[in-house]
Amino acid sequence: MTTELDDGFHVFDTTLRDGAQREGINLTVADKLTIARHLDDFGVGFIEGGWPGANPRDTEFFARARGELKLRNSVLVAFGATRRANASAAEDPQVNALLESGAPVITLVAKSHDRHVELALRTTLEENLEMVRDTVSYLVAQGRRVFVDCEHFFDGYRADAAYATDVVRAAHEAGASVVVLCDTNGGMLPAQVQAVTGLVLADTGARLGIHAQDDSGCAVANTLAAVDAGATHVQCTANGYGERVGNANLFPVVAALELKHGRRVLPDGALGEMTRISHAIAEVVNLPPSTHQPYVGVSAFAHKAGLHASAIKIDPDLYQHIDPELVGNTMRMLVSDMAGRASIELKGRELGIDLGGDRALVQRVVDRVKERELQGYTYEAADASFALLMRGEVEQAGGRTPRRFFRTESWRAIIEDRPDGIHANEATVKVWAKGERIVATAEGNGPVNALDRALRVGLERIYPQLAGFALVDYKVRILEGRSGTDSTTRVLITTTDGSGEWSTVGVADNVIAASWQALDDAYAYGLLRAGLEPQE
Amino acid sequence: MTTELDDGFHVFDTTLRDGAQREGINLTVADKLTIARHLDDFGVGFIEGGWPGANPRDTEFFARARGELKLRNSVLVAFGATRRANASAAEDPQVNALLESGAPVITLVAKSHDRHVELALRTTLEENLEMVRDTVSYLVAQGRRVFVDCEHFFDGYRADAAYATDVVRAAHEAGASVVVLCDTNGGMLPAQVQAVTGLVLADTGARLGIHAQDDSGCAVANTLAAVDAGATHVQCTANGYGERVGNANLFPVVAALELKHGRRVLPDGALGEMTRISHAIAEVVNLPPSTHQPYVGVSAFAHKAGLHASAIKIDPDLYQHIDPELVGNTMRMLVSDMAGRASIELKGRELGIDLGGDRALVQRVVDRVKERELQGYTYEAADASFALLMRGEVEQAGGRTPRRFFRTESWRAIIEDRPDGIHANEATVKVWAKGERIVATAEGNGPVNALDRALRVGLERIYPQLAGFALVDYKVRILEGRSGTDSTTRVLITTTDGSGEWSTVGVADNVIAASWQALDDAYAYGLLRAGLEPQE
Repeated sequence: MTTELDDGFHVFDTTLRDGAQREGINLTVADKLTIARHLDDFGVGFIEGGWPGANPRDTEFFARARGELKLRNSVLVAFGATRRANASAAEDPQVNALLESGAPVITLVAKSHDRHVELALRTTLEENLEMVRDTVSYLVAQGRRVFVDCEHFFDGYRADAAYATDVVRAAHEAGASVVVLCDTNGGMLPAQVQAVTGLVLADTGARLGIHAQDDSGCAVANTLAAVDAGATHVQCTANGYGERVGNANLFPVVAALELKHGRRVLPDGALGEMTRISHAIAEVVNLPPSTHQPYVGVSAFAHKAGLHASAIKIDPDLYQHIDPELVGNTMRMLVSDMAGRASIELKGRELGIDLGGDRALVQRVVDRVKERELQGYTYEAADASFALLMRGEVEQAGGRTPRRFFRTESWRAIIEDRPDGIHANEATVKVWAKGERIVATAEGNGPVNALDRALRVGLERIYPQLAGFALVDYKVRILEGRSGTDSTTRVLITTTDGSGEWSTVGVADNVIAASWQALDDAYAYGLLRAGLEPQE
Repeated sequence: MTTELDDGFHVFDTTLRDGAQREGINLTVADKLTIARHLDDFGVGFIEGGWPGANPRDTEFFARARGELKLRNSVLVAFGATRRANASAAEDPQVNALLESGAPVITLVAKSHDRHVELALRTTLEENLEMVRDTVSYLVAQGRRVFVDCEHFFDGYRADAAYATDVVRAAHEAGASVVVLCDTNGGMLPAQVQAVTGLVLADTGARLGIHAQDDSGCAVANTLAAVDAGATHVQCTANGYGERVGNANLFPVVAALELKHGRRVLPDGALGEMTRISHAIAEVVNLPPSTHQPYVGVSAFAHKAGLHASAIKIDPDLYQHIDPELVGNTMRMLVSDMAGRASIELKGRELGIDLGGDRALVQRVVDRVKERELQGYTYEAADASFALLMRGEVEQAGGRTPRRFFRTESWRAIIEDRPDGIHANEATVKVWAKGERIVATAEGNGPVNALDRALRVGLERIYPQLAGFALVDYKVRILEGRSGTDSTTRVLITTTDGSGEWSTVGVADNVIAASWQALDDAYAYGLLRAGLEPQE
């Protein structure tokens, strides 16, 4: 740990509280504990866990966290509000629930916009200041460290700068160790954030933080603008999750601070885990990781244009703003019909397939990719299917007929919702492998699962390696968007053998047939990975 | 048109050229023409259409554009490169292809980073300046307006500020009407962009533009920072499409300029079409519109937290940075188990269902939503299923058994891939409607399509309205991410009756059963919309 990782600068994560407001996110207590462990691994200074007392889930989270959550790098924070109007903090059950949570740090949300005080809190401006002073000093007297979130601060400052500043001063003088300026509605632009933060810092001398929502598409820049103006506490969420458009995204903020501002804010080695942790948190919240997220998206260092591909061979650093390994990501060459031969050769090298500088062969692969992409295949997301395609062309160029591990004669799936309420799913496959005709039937919890099981039942005697394969992701996309169930369907399947994952694609007029193709490729590629050679 | 819409400030769109580099985008000529029409409707000043001569698709685009594309607001731009080293522009086929495209404006990409000149172009720094001067002056002499994109400008400025500035000066002095500073690798932060743009403007007196990639998550802010420093030409792409992470997103840039900088950059009324145009372009490129995109995402003005929902009843403007109608979007209240009774009441009002202030009823709806969301349903994206759920609870509260238009006894789907290569999909449904038992069978191009058709075959005699319904979108999501085909499946269906669209949800252990539920809800809601009352 360097001194820069002490209390001088705070990376404060609010994924579990503000991030959970995102449309489509619904976290269990177990999810919250898992995410907290990922954030602790990443090494944020503070993890805001929720609002104990406001709902049973958050109360349970803090109760379980006391026993189950061993944090190495981070401090757990409880979120709550200033006390009710015209009562005392010591007697406010909501305030006392914050103490009971056991969290050593408490973030209090306070109103700082005059109209919100009057219309939403329905109290006077003076009583609001008193609520801030009383609640902060009560919690500080109870031995807690207190941060104050000034909600709607920037809009409030525009409406009544003196009053908004008074709220900051009240929190600071009552003992809050950080006062956080919140762009709650997310409408600010960086120049405004920088100017206001500088003025408030000069006026109050309080230690300031920044909490930016992304409604203008500037949350990361607004956060950095506040830091430029002297803020030393940044509130962010993993992958930018949050209400409406979202919050300032933790990952590009931290990467900019470390790699571009030269400020150490994470423990040694943590930045290199960023891509993995971003994806792991996306898995827990059950949202697909954004492919185009800065630094950590699978596309973030992916190069498509033929123009660039030839120059990248000379010096990759000319074409990327940072070395992707610094954040645990990798450079990728994309296969698409915009790519020329240079990209196909690079891609072959990446997949361990030597095209031997054979220009005609490379051109045939380019042509075949174009033809298949017109039909709806996408090889950008299905490296394993692309490797099989390339392998097939290499075999043909060598005068051999491309071989497969098995050949499909036919398959059938029956899905029934019976009058007794039972769903029945049954599949039969007829395939040939090593000269043998195999007929196998299995049930599953859906048609694709039943087909998958029937295939394994039939083939596992011949290829025992199949027992070690598991499907880990299955995605369906309807390609011609405006015709509903009457369209081309693309299925992407990700399979693992425990030591690695590979993705395959299938395209057909229906989801089952497309799934079958992707399964077929998934098994073929997995068996190749296992070192087998196909002999039909 | 106001004077601010004349040549004084340029909104320059490069969706068709740079945007098309995005992973997953593959545009046909027809797609490009359609997108150009949308951009013209939106009223951008310039539409960069592609690189004529570089590939057959772009050449064909310009050829067809001459006859088919009638632009009302925008000017079409061809993109190309400065001439080859040690040759003349007049004899360079690539340069002449730009003239042959017929585009009145040409954007030339020029190297401005010393190492790129040496390693990628493999020529001298002086020859590169000569390539800029010669190509610009040749095209200007041929009557074209020329913009010059200084590729890798900001990295180049850091490496050798004098040389990068010389490139700007060379382009300006040779007659380029705008010189565009490009953050090609996307690594800049707003403070750097603002400082460098200001210095270059002071040094050269050239009219400057900005082209920002989003690799640091700051492309919108970088674009606005350049404008703050005096740039009067912004290059953007619709929905931020572009290579790697993407380009500066046209929509938040234009909205910030119009609504926050007070600068008129679009024709009257165009800003109110922004949400529609963003979604229409996403349809054409065949990518799902980003739900969390600033201003135009379906979540951009969606409120989830119970805390906010009660205050929003008092004054919505306290909780949104702009009036969503200004950009053609709408405020939405989200239904989720985080929401309290206030949100459910507001949502009922939005859907035209009066809960009559019945607190127990509202609580039962809240409880039912929580229970169903635990099972995997999501009502945030399925308003019609939510309306049916609410309606069911209202009927029960009134002492009535909830009625449906039809009741399912059973269904069965058979999907076969036969040895003769034919896919056969057949479905049989057994349903009850108006006291009658109906058995119907149909074929389709997939199991869901076959079920959909069988249901229509069976019910259209009783409910002729079904003939007017069409499925327009069908989405499948696997809910428990790490177990592949052996998981819970959620299906969302969007249906239209020509005058509106509605979305329904189904959740089951397999995709067919989940689709059936969503279809069932889709027909029930559509018949209610048509004014029918269910009588089983």
